Amino acid sequence: MLSAPPPVFILVNPQMGENIGAAARAMMNFGIPTLRLVNPRDGWPNPAATDNATGAFEHMNEVVVFPSLKDAIADLHTVYATTARTRDIAKATYTPAAAMTELRARHGTNNTHHTGFVFGPERTGLENDDLALCHAIVYIPTNPAFPVLNLAQSVLLIAQEFFRSLDQTPPVINDVTPAPQAEFDALFQRLQDELDHGGFFKSEDLKPRMLRNLRTMLLRGQWSEQEIRTFQGMLSALTGKNK
Amino acid sequence: MLSAPPPVFILVNPQMGENIGAAARAMMNFGIPTLRLVNPRDGWPNPAATDNATGAFEHMNEVVVFPSLKDAIADLHTVYATTARTRDIAKATYTPAAAMTELRARHGTNNTHHTGFVFGPERTGLENDDLALCHAIVYIPTNPAFPVLNLAQSVLLIAQEFFRSLDQTPPVINDVTPAPQAEFDALFQRLQDELDHGGFFKSEDLKPRMLRNLRTMLLRGQWSEQEIRTFQGMLSALTGKNK
Repeated sequence: MLSAPPPVFILVNPQMGENIGAAARAMMNFGIPTLRLVNPRDGWPNPAATDNATGAFEHMNEVVVFPSLKDAIADLHTVYATTARTRDIAKATYTPAAAMTELRARHGTNNTHHTGFVFGPERTGLENDDLALCHAIVYIPTNPAFPVLNLAQSVLLIAQEFFRSLDQTPPVINDVTPAPQAEFDALFQRLQDELDHGGFFKSEDLKPRMLRNLRTMLLRGQWSEQEIRTFQGMLSALTGKNK
Repeated sequence: MLSAPPPVFILVNPQMGENIGAAARAMMNFGIPTLRLVNPRDGWPNPAATDNATGAFEHMNEVVVFPSLKDAIADLHTVYATTARTRDIAKATYTPAAAMTELRARHGTNNTHHTGFVFGPERTGLENDDLALCHAIVYIPTNPAFPVLNLAQSVLLIAQEFFRSLDQTPPVINDVTPAPQAEFDALFQRLQDELDHGGFFKSEDLKPRMLRNLRTMLLRGQWSEQEIRTFQGMLSALTGKNK
C-alpha cells in the first residue's frame, strides 16, 4: 500500500478555546497533525486552547485560520462532513469505519489524494450550506437515549478510526507463552504422587475421573515455565520438603 | 445471541470531579449505565462531576462508592484492566476490539456472566496490585509520539468499542438511490441530440469516443430520478426552451 498523508481536520466556527485544545490533543493521540480553523469565535491563537492541548500543538503543523469552509478545503480532493444525526440530504452517509475504508482505497491508488474531515460548531453542528460543500457525510452511531457527543469526543473517535485503519497492533498483544506440555505433565505426575501419598483419592474407581477433572482445571491456566516452577515450589512447601 | 448486561465501569482513585462527569457522559453516549468509584479523591457526590455529565447521571444506575477495587469487583466474573502502556506482567493483553470479541463470546453462552472494565487514576494509571486483581489487560493503541489519553477519553473509547460490538448500523447509512438506467439513457439521448445540434462533435470519427467519455463522466454521479429531472431542466434552460 502506498503511504498517504493523514486527513486534514477542519473545525468550523468553534467556540470554546478549551474544545479546540482538546480536539488537537485527540488528533495527536492518533497521529493527525493538520488542524484548520474556520472563523474561531474567540480568535487565534487562543491561550485556553494551548492550555488544554497539553503540548499537542508542538507536534502539529501550524494551525491555519480560514474565513470560510470553501477556502479551508480548496486544496483537498475528498471532504467528509461529520454529523451527530443523519440528515435529509442526498449524500452518501458512512459510519466512521466505512469512511476510512473508502479513504484508504482512494489513498491506495493515489498517494497525492488529500482528504479532510469537517466538524461543526459545538451546539449546532454544520449548516446545510457547509454540508453541500462536502462529498459525503460521516455519522457516528451512539446510544439513541443519550446521543450528543461533544466536539473533542467526535474528533477523538474519527481520529482513532483513521489510526485503527492503519494500525498493525495484533489483537492479543502480550499473551503468556505456556510451557511445553511435557513440563506440565511432569508437574502433574508429581502432584498425583503427592496426592496419592496424602490419601486424596477416595477409591481406585473414582481416581481416573478425579484425575481428569484435576487436569482440566489446572490445564486451563496454560502456565508458563516460570509458573510451573512456582507450583513445584508450592508442592515442596505444602509437603514439608522445605523444612 | 443471548442479551447480557453491559459491562460495569470502575474508576479507581479518580481525582477531578470534572473527569468523573465526562466519563459518565461518555459511558451513556454508548449505553453503559453502571459506574462504580473506588476512593474518589474529592468524595461523592461531587458537584463538578454532575455539571460535567450534562445529565448523564439521570440515565444511569446509582453510582456506588467502594473502599477498594477488590470490593468493587466482588460480584463480577471477568474483569479487564485498562492501561495506557503495555506492562511487563504475565497477563493476556488485548486491544479493545479483541476484548469485546472475548466478552461477547462469554456473554453469548452465559447471560449471567458479569464483566467490568477498570480505569486507573488520571496521572499514574493502575497500580500493579490493582492489575493483579484483573483477569486480563486492555491496551488502547495510540500514536507513540503522543500517547497519553485522558481518563474520559479512555472511557469513551472503551465504551464505544462495546457499543460497536452490538451496533447494527449499516456501513453506508443513507446512500442515494440512483434512477433506473432507462431514465439516464433518455437524458443522455436528449443531451446527445442537443450537442449534435450545437456542433459539439468535431467529426463523425471522434463522436463515438467522445460519447463514451461523456457517458463515463455523467454516469459516475449515479443520479437519482429527481436529479435527472434537474438536469433535464438545465438542458431546457441552456437551449433556450424556457424563453
